Amino acid sequence: MRMTSLQAAVRRSLREFGVPGPGETVVVALSGGPDSVALLDALNSAAPRMAFHVVAAHLDHALRPTSPADAAFCRNLCERLGVSVHMGTADVRGRARRERAGLEDAARAERYSFLRKVAWQTGATAIALGHTRDDQAETLLLRLLRGAGSAGLAAMRPSRGDLIRPLLSVSRAEVLGHLAARGLEWRDDASNADLSILRNRVRHELVPYLEARVNPAARRTLARAASLLADEADYFAREARRLLPTVSRPVAAGLVLDRGALGALAPVLARHVLRGALREAGGLEGVSSLHVERLRQLAARPDAAERRLPLPGGREAVSRAGQLTIVARGGEAGARFPAREMR
Amino acid sequence: MRMTSLQAAVRRSLREFGVPGPGETVVVALSGGPDSVALLDALNSAAPRMAFHVVAAHLDHALRPTSPADAAFCRNLCERLGVSVHMGTADVRGRARRERAGLEDAARAERYSFLRKVAWQTGATAIALGHTRDDQAETLLLRLLRGAGSAGLAAMRPSRGDLIRPLLSVSRAEVLGHLAARGLEWRDDASNADLSILRNRVRHELVPYLEARVNPAARRTLARAASLLADEADYFAREARRLLPTVSRPVAAGLVLDRGALGALAPVLARHVLRGALREAGGLEGVSSLHVERLRQLAARPDAAERRLPLPGGREAVSRAGQLTIVARGGEAGARFPAREMR
Repeated sequence: MRMTSLQAAVRRSLREFGVPGPGETVVVALSGGPDSVALLDALNSAAPRMAFHVVAAHLDHALRPTSPADAAFCRNLCERLGVSVHMGTADVRGRARRERAGLEDAARAERYSFLRKVAWQTGATAIALGHTRDDQAETLLLRLLRGAGSAGLAAMRPSRGDLIRPLLSVSRAEVLGHLAARGLEWRDDASNADLSILRNRVRHELVPYLEARVNPAARRTLARAASLLADEADYFAREARRLLPTVSRPVAAGLVLDRGALGALAPVLARHVLRGALREAGGLEGVSSLHVERLRQLAARPDAAERRLPLPGGREAVSRAGQLTIVARGGEAGARFPAREMR
Repeated sequence: MRMTSLQAAVRRSLREFGVPGPGETVVVALSGGPDSVALLDALNSAAPRMAFHVVAAHLDHALRPTSPADAAFCRNLCERLGVSVHMGTADVRGRARRERAGLEDAARAERYSFLRKVAWQTGATAIALGHTRDDQAETLLLRLLRGAGSAGLAAMRPSRGDLIRPLLSVSRAEVLGHLAARGLEWRDDASNADLSILRNRVRHELVPYLEARVNPAARRTLARAASLLADEADYFAREARRLLPTVSRPVAAGLVLDRGALGALAPVLARHVLRGALREAGGLEGVSSLHVERLRQLAARPDAAERRLPLPGGREAVSRAGQLTIVARGGEAGARFPAREMR
């Protein structure tokens, strides 16, 4: 049987990533939706030849009435494909309550911790996610329109840490083509049609509009822009990591930056260094490009008067004389605030 | 009378730009539309206090039946405001024919050469353009959706060379507010409603959709993203200017690059250096981010076999052994191709 374009793309991606290597194991995040079913099948069909092992992992989010049926579907699919599957059940509502987070954020956190647990239990070297080029285009639009700044515009990476996204160059249409060619079924997620969810409006309204009225290849074009912006974001992140220690030093309550040294950097580098400083002093949760820019402007003010800028995560920046301090609010002389968990 | 928010923004911009300085002259590009009328009025009202001179310039594009009436309107407005005005007539169709360009590109080229002529005749140090924050948001969307790559995503700069855009932080709503507050009239450009023009679809369909369904502050958010991306693009352009001479040398027919030195750069820097090389060897007209990336991949191939890549502007890249040459097609040993005029 001829390989589908999706299978070819997945093999190309794996060769590029260099993971999973021979003898290694990859955990596939399986929701039962078309993307993850196609990904599982493509990885499973590549496994014998490339000599790696495939394990599936399905987390029942227990948020929808259909979720037991989704779980049963995944179990049956894996049996048919001869793939061992790890099943889990999440307490999304509980986590959302405990962490005062939205359901979507809590579900993602539960999912990633389940996947990492399965990876640990199976000794896997990689976790494969089913994000497609369409998801990438939607993510770029969402981040752009929410004001993420260039670091956020970069959207998703094909591989980062233990995560790989072998379908990131594959369109949703290719996914459906693969499923048809291989006679595979999938579960539809009814919430995908819910237009009260912003991502679904982007998927079902904005992207089709762009393709009809602006550029028929909008998805591909946006995904390519995301990839170029990712390279630039990575470059600046590396530069910032290199520069941060040269303009700052840690203190008990946070971080102190040298305003003169910061001012000598190009504004764009200063912004990335300050983003790195915020990451180090409490994390980036809730930090937008506007916070970073306000912080840069505070540091760049020519005067020596003491000024304060409130920052997300209960922090504030204090500028005085030649220094800019990022500290827990009211805690300049107090204890170090706990680092927030990163995404 | 109280200053409008537009007047305040214009004065802030001028102080930031530092032009026009005391005793200097600024040429205002006046089409008769709301943006340019508001800009002329705001500059004219700031002129006595900031001690600069204002001259208006109106170019009749002779493309529309209303253009004589537009010209008469501009003449009357300037008389009422006490501003001297320079009138010109363009041969847009002729230029488009001669340069095999689209009408829109030819009109822009005619407009800029007219504005520069007036600036030269009046000894002006700056040319003021009426682009607003709304234009900036639309430009970012257009470039993103056309696949401009990050250098193009940067959109318009508040000031670059002799051009200043004092309204770039001002919304179209503020323009209309200013005109109402000052009792000023303007000419409507009927072609602005023509939805067969891509920019008008972006303005009248896409942006309103985004504000209604994605982010009510979409215009402001997009304009801010454009400004951050501009800083990053400028940074990379500076780095590329610094690095290009270290990895290349000019030859009679173009430019020769050292593939080893290029390969030692981060891919993102290599891309910007190659964009700079293309700019130097014949210009960037017709060059997309995809051309640059293909060129980078050609240079990065591990083999020494001779390979050729056709490039816009009748050029090609030739890769062989340790070198990558950018030359006029078939003219590797021949004459240097003429540099194309930049935008």
